[in-house]
Amino acid sequence: MQRLSQHERGLTLGELARRNDCDLRGKPDIRVHRVAPLARADSRCVAFFLQRAYLDDLRATSAAAVILSERHAGECPVAALLTPDPYGAYARVADDLHALAPLNPGVHPHATVSPGAAVDASCEVSPGARVGAGAVLERGVFLGPNVTVGAGARIGEDSRLLANVAIGEEARIGRRCIVHPSAVLGSDGFGQAPSEDGSWRKIPQLGSVRVGDDVEIGAGAVIDRGALEDTVIGDGARLDNLIQVGHNVHIGEHTAIAAGCMIAGSARIGRRCRIAGGVGIAGHLQICDDVVLLARTVVTSSVKEPGTYAGSMTPMEEVASWRRNAARFRRLDELYRRVRRLERRK
Amino acid sequence: MQRLSQHERGLTLGELARRNDCDLRGKPDIRVHRVAPLARADSRCVAFFLQRAYLDDLRATSAAAVILSERHAGECPVAALLTPDPYGAYARVADDLHALAPLNPGVHPHATVSPGAAVDASCEVSPGARVGAGAVLERGVFLGPNVTVGAGARIGEDSRLLANVAIGEEARIGRRCIVHPSAVLGSDGFGQAPSEDGSWRKIPQLGSVRVGDDVEIGAGAVIDRGALEDTVIGDGARLDNLIQVGHNVHIGEHTAIAAGCMIAGSARIGRRCRIAGGVGIAGHLQICDDVVLLARTVVTSSVKEPGTYAGSMTPMEEVASWRRNAARFRRLDELYRRVRRLERRK
Amino acid sequence: MQRLSQHERGLTLGELARRNDCDLRGKPDIRVHRVAPLARADSRCVAFFLQRAYLDDLRATSAAAVILSERHAGECPVAALLTPDPYGAYARVADDLHALAPLNPGVHPHATVSPGAAVDASCEVSPGARVGAGAVLERGVFLGPNVTVGAGARIGEDSRLLANVAIGEEARIGRRCIVHPSAVLGSDGFGQAPSEDGSWRKIPQLGSVRVGDDVEIGAGAVIDRGALEDTVIGDGARLDNLIQVGHNVHIGEHTAIAAGCMIAGSARIGRRCRIAGGVGIAGHLQICDDVVLLARTVVTSSVKEPGTYAGSMTPMEEVASWRRNAARFRRLDELYRRVRRLERRK
Repeated sequence: MQRLSQHERGLTLGELARRNDCDLRGKPDIRVHRVAPLARADSRCVAFFLQRAYLDDLRATSAAAVILSERHAGECPVAALLTPDPYGAYARVADDLHALAPLNPGVHPHATVSPGAAVDASCEVSPGARVGAGAVLERGVFLGPNVTVGAGARIGEDSRLLANVAIGEEARIGRRCIVHPSAVLGSDGFGQAPSEDGSWRKIPQLGSVRVGDDVEIGAGAVIDRGALEDTVIGDGARLDNLIQVGHNVHIGEHTAIAAGCMIAGSARIGRRCRIAGGVGIAGHLQICDDVVLLARTVVTSSVKEPGTYAGSMTPMEEVASWRRNAARFRRLDELYRRVRRLERRK
Repeated sequence: MQRLSQHERGLTLGELARRNDCDLRGKPDIRVHRVAPLARADSRCVAFFLQRAYLDDLRATSAAAVILSERHAGECPVAALLTPDPYGAYARVADDLHALAPLNPGVHPHATVSPGAAVDASCEVSPGARVGAGAVLERGVFLGPNVTVGAGARIGEDSRLLANVAIGEEARIGRRCIVHPSAVLGSDGFGQAPSEDGSWRKIPQLGSVRVGDDVEIGAGAVIDRGALEDTVIGDGARLDNLIQVGHNVHIGEHTAIAAGCMIAGSARIGRRCRIAGGVGIAGHLQICDDVVLLARTVVTSSVKEPGTYAGSMTPMEEVASWRRNAARFRRLDELYRRVRRLERRK
Repeated sequence: MQRLSQHERGLTLGELARRNDCDLRGKPDIRVHRVAPLARADSRCVAFFLQRAYLDDLRATSAAAVILSERHAGECPVAALLTPDPYGAYARVADDLHALAPLNPGVHPHATVSPGAAVDASCEVSPGARVGAGAVLERGVFLGPNVTVGAGARIGEDSRLLANVAIGEEARIGRRCIVHPSAVLGSDGFGQAPSEDGSWRKIPQLGSVRVGDDVEIGAGAVIDRGALEDTVIGDGARLDNLIQVGHNVHIGEHTAIAAGCMIAGSARIGRRCRIAGGVGIAGHLQICDDVVLLARTVVTSSVKEPGTYAGSMTPMEEVASWRRNAARFRRLDELYRRVRRLERRK
């Protein structure tokens, strides 16, 4: 997303400390203009320190100030913005110094707003964007180039849909959402009735997609509309790139899902789950709140207890030994039986 | 896809029974307007019943009528549309009551039709769409916003290409196909010749893509053009979202492939196969007709017998035990040898 | 990509041999117009032969000439273009006979070039394309329909961005790159700071993407911008379709990555690596030069030695035996302990 490369006037360390609940160790009237990594920061920059791996960078930094925890304050050679949550404070400081580019309100002449659509005067509608009949863009919405908002859809205040996003008919997108390029929300679910002759009959997909407030959806992600009821993404959920969400899925509030996950239809995922990259979740099952799934896990039955789960990933190794081990996998059950026989021998 | 939210005049149960080969138990002149789930249906709605899990909903439904099999007719408190295939009948009834939005024929002034392209007067070409030189849109084709049809491509009657779909040059798309947003048909295959210095030389991709009739392609799916011959998708095939189909692949008629599958170049997949999510298929191999592949299976050799196959998915478990088991995988071959030694002991 | 279906005037075998360093066995003044597979080539065509599987096709070919290695020259019934690297020579001959369609310079009236952008007069900017403020298109750049080039981005000479590609603000794309439809370069990385209440705070993504020269990026691929520094793709790298590249990743020169790979943030991948389809690479680790990863491998620790590695793929089998074996996986550690106990028995 386009942000200011730096704050033109700058902000003082005193202002930053006050706005972001930090304890300032240093002069409050020093002005900073942007954030930068410890090793590349200069006297106009704020840096942050999280991990001991960067301790040398911290000790040698030329930043005006560093955001870090009390515990490492002694190692900081410059002004310090102290906080128990340096990463969160960094996020807020970066937002202060690199605000999102302000909207340029209006509908570009190369955009198309259908009769009967309601576009608030504060919205920016980029060239090539298309707003369908009866769709509503609330205050402060940004539509990037070639974004499509289907008939009857509603986009909440201050949401930003970036280039080539497609929003299906009747979809509801909450406030302050960000949808990255080429994501598709509200495509038809994969509903196919088998016929006796082996052919398929498409099941009309009549539900829609409801996305809560403060949701972020990654580039190229696809969220299907529901078959009869809606697909629902809870407030504050975070979906990374190239994720598939099948029809009727519910994703709970503040659940974060990394790139490449595939969630089959009608799965229900709880709140505050953390799902790593490439996870697969079978259809029609439930995952309770506060579940962590490691990369590539395939979930084929409901998860009823919070906790960390894994599966489907076996360790990488040199190819010759991997071949031997993988081949043995096919005889694993047999091996078990052989061991049991050995155990029965006296 | 945009459908009518309900049938304005409604259809009588008698008409629905007749059109869809159902046996009506109830009054034939009751008028219904839309489909709905059992639990939310009112007296203007038809619902359907498939699974015993919804038996309580069936008994309590306020629908005007329910589509279900003879076997459960006794549990239905309202009119019944009886059929041995309730899911298929539901699909047809839903089509009757929620028809696709009719086309609004014409080329939008923000669309671009190259000289030498042939667009039938019955087609709808949405804003931002672009039809290349020599391309042909047959009768009743819908191009959504920002769809690109490459030079010389041909789109068959009544096919619908939704927002941001890209169709490559010379591609052939059959009749009544549906291509969901952001799908790409006819991108270059991944043909790269290695040089001695480690660099790659691109192999020109000179084939195209041929898609049969009644094919559905999911959002964000990518089907590469062939290297010299064509990539071919058979009649009635169903591809879900975010699927990769490499160059020269052939997919047989009525084969259905769920989201996230990756099919490498020159694979040949038979007819009526059912391929679950996240499956990988290596290049240059053959899968015969009527093969079922469970989720995440990786196919590395040809499948010559119809049947159900699986692999590459090990069960999910709590992370600590998973770590222990996964680590042992690396010594599985060694374990075999140790068991064999034990067996040889007397 | 659009290429000429054949060379209008044709080229002589003598010219082709000279331009591509082949040894011609046959008449140098025979004219050929296009390439074709051995079995379908006619007297206007050049074919190539690589694999013994096609020996019958070679013996029966009606091509004007065949590109092949000295070793198989005896089997070739027609003129031969002999070379130690037939596949590379074929690539060059195919380029000679099927050149990329020449650009049609100019900015289409349905395209939008922001004030302050610099578009060289030799560029072709297709309908629906949008070039942001301050962006630069160097000589000979092609922007396909509905391509977006963000503010301040720079596209190097002779690069071609195909339909619906989105290039983020400030991105740098080198010379002679090809980006296939719907790829996204420069979307925000997935940076999220957890809060105590379980919600997430978005980390502004302030770096960009730098792509070297001669890079090819597949359809639907997503390359995130860096969080503070840049995501970097080295010269000559080849990325296939639907690949995810997280923020701050570095990919070395001439590394080739097949479809569906997922590379998490801050991973560093060396030069000349060959990464097969569906591989996952965890964040913050390093893979040295000249590493080959087989399909579906998941890399969870750094790879420090060149070589071939595999993992995470167990063999496909009939579903009943697979179920038994997969279930045993959960008790693999236990099995080890049981075998050890047996070994200790005398």
